[in-house]
Amino acid sequence: MSNSEPTTFNGWAATAAGAPLEPYSYDPGPLGEEDVEVAVEYCGVCHSDQSLIDNDWGISRYPFVPGHEAVGKIVRMGSQVRGLQLGQRVGIGWYKGSCMHCSSCMSGSQQLCGTAQPTIIGSNGGFADHLRAHWAWAVAVPDSLDPALVGPLFCAGSTVFNPLMQFGVKPTDRVGVVGIGGLGHLALRFLNAWGCEVTAFTSSLNKQDEAKRLGAHNVVASTDSNALKAIAGSLDFLLISANADLDWPAMLATLRANGRLHFVGIVPSAIPVHVFDLIPQQKSLSASPVGSPGTMATMLEFCARHQILPQVEMFPMSKVNEAVDHLRSGKARYRVVLDASQ
Amino acid sequence: MSNSEPTTFNGWAATAAGAPLEPYSYDPGPLGEEDVEVAVEYCGVCHSDQSLIDNDWGISRYPFVPGHEAVGKIVRMGSQVRGLQLGQRVGIGWYKGSCMHCSSCMSGSQQLCGTAQPTIIGSNGGFADHLRAHWAWAVAVPDSLDPALVGPLFCAGSTVFNPLMQFGVKPTDRVGVVGIGGLGHLALRFLNAWGCEVTAFTSSLNKQDEAKRLGAHNVVASTDSNALKAIAGSLDFLLISANADLDWPAMLATLRANGRLHFVGIVPSAIPVHVFDLIPQQKSLSASPVGSPGTMATMLEFCARHQILPQVEMFPMSKVNEAVDHLRSGKARYRVVLDASQ
Repeated sequence: MSNSEPTTFNGWAATAAGAPLEPYSYDPGPLGEEDVEVAVEYCGVCHSDQSLIDNDWGISRYPFVPGHEAVGKIVRMGSQVRGLQLGQRVGIGWYKGSCMHCSSCMSGSQQLCGTAQPTIIGSNGGFADHLRAHWAWAVAVPDSLDPALVGPLFCAGSTVFNPLMQFGVKPTDRVGVVGIGGLGHLALRFLNAWGCEVTAFTSSLNKQDEAKRLGAHNVVASTDSNALKAIAGSLDFLLISANADLDWPAMLATLRANGRLHFVGIVPSAIPVHVFDLIPQQKSLSASPVGSPGTMATMLEFCARHQILPQVEMFPMSKVNEAVDHLRSGKARYRVVLDASQ
Repeated sequence: MSNSEPTTFNGWAATAAGAPLEPYSYDPGPLGEEDVEVAVEYCGVCHSDQSLIDNDWGISRYPFVPGHEAVGKIVRMGSQVRGLQLGQRVGIGWYKGSCMHCSSCMSGSQQLCGTAQPTIIGSNGGFADHLRAHWAWAVAVPDSLDPALVGPLFCAGSTVFNPLMQFGVKPTDRVGVVGIGGLGHLALRFLNAWGCEVTAFTSSLNKQDEAKRLGAHNVVASTDSNALKAIAGSLDFLLISANADLDWPAMLATLRANGRLHFVGIVPSAIPVHVFDLIPQQKSLSASPVGSPGTMATMLEFCARHQILPQVEMFPMSKVNEAVDHLRSGKARYRVVLDASQ
């Protein structure tokens, strides 16, 4: 098959805000010279898939095929693809391309490229038999990681792994994780292997044993002001993976000198930051997106070494609507993955 | 004179909120074993002196002697003083002591000690003939720096120098400074010598030539939304030395990837931080107090090398009330220093 031959991708598309996904075929056009084409084996279902299906952000255009935690083997490559081979298993996450020449791309922070191309905004994603990406954003999956489970690492995993690298979290640090969900449960696993003292914050203390099983050394009720006071001044880094408005001054108070409150969750309201809460102990507040391809490769190597994988629930691709509804229900423990072979 | 002999310090005290300072003598008690006693030659007048005189923070107790940018020679030393000599010229800034054994003190961040002792909260400061401090917080003044001008470096100077070291500002960075006053004018001088591209933000564009003379390469009107848009995505570090509520989303937008919005000014209202303004370009927000003794020593060495000193207006100590009123008027260019010999 030459690059200019017509072809058809078969997926599941959202056709209107909140509507069930429907079978959908489309012509992806000619394969770009720097693109790889992947035969999807598995694809994770992420909260941002659901947000775009439901048009929560007001930017969705229908029809579109969701899915940005795709794993599969390369079946075609453009002539300028580097570092990858036909038949190799790769993953494609939130971004599927970037300009490759801006200062962010040139300095290895491709995730900060101003024109980075999200996989499912303005194009079709991985709830399909095939998906394409720029070679740089198709990251090789180590053989020792189960391909059925690895998908969520490409979005959820890289979102919580990225700040550990970008903001210099050290194995000697005391780190808190707020929210034990799709992102948070991976953060607990990463941070335990990272060597840190790990404190899980959860609104439902019935997740206490679960949090410890996932790697937490301590568990704190995130809505218990006395519990928060008891750990005041103790944490070096507090990762917010929850999408909820919390008592931010109380959360800042859990940090010790030079501590950082870091957001990867989309908190609905503005966070009111009082300079007086930051100055005396020289605290920071920050947020970050997914990791660069280099960070994802480092994450996968770390995951292979420590056998860190997400806890997932599998659905056949043909039951994609059940899978999305399960995620919507808030009952997913902790990530949902579609099996494209079924 | 032995350490237990009664002695008298003669200063100028605030006796009620906003009242003129009055001559005031007090017994400082026995000299601590780790303390030095300094005969004050010069003392800067800082906005926080004025805030405490006026009880702006609601914590003032009268009478108290303001002054925490004191410079003078050591005239007495406790038996456990280290690294200093009688007759040596030192400066004493916002803090005059810390516990010396907590993790912050032991790791060289004594300014973050939870029990660090502010020079003029709960004790008397440098608008006086004598002042004492723990030896660690009495920082040697290099001979090549004019003692009449060096005082403001110990509070204003260290406040803006500290974040350059603590947050890793690089000579290759593009740095903005908001507010061209007591702190900001020193920040411009530091950053120019630091090697950065320096952009001054000022509400009064009549300070434009002044800002350039102080080291700015560019000047932007901080209240001109079009001017802010024109430099969107360009700065690595934006230092807020102003004490005013500004358009913070617009200020955050001037930062490029990995940029930091950093506060050393006490902004009156909470800063509303939207996570979406931080995530895509991985931005941070932070704040910090004065520098540690080690940072102050490094600052003074840097100042001596580059002959960086504050621009000051001198008043005799006997005209301390005129000096404070001049500061209150907002017309000080840029720091006020009292000469204790007059």
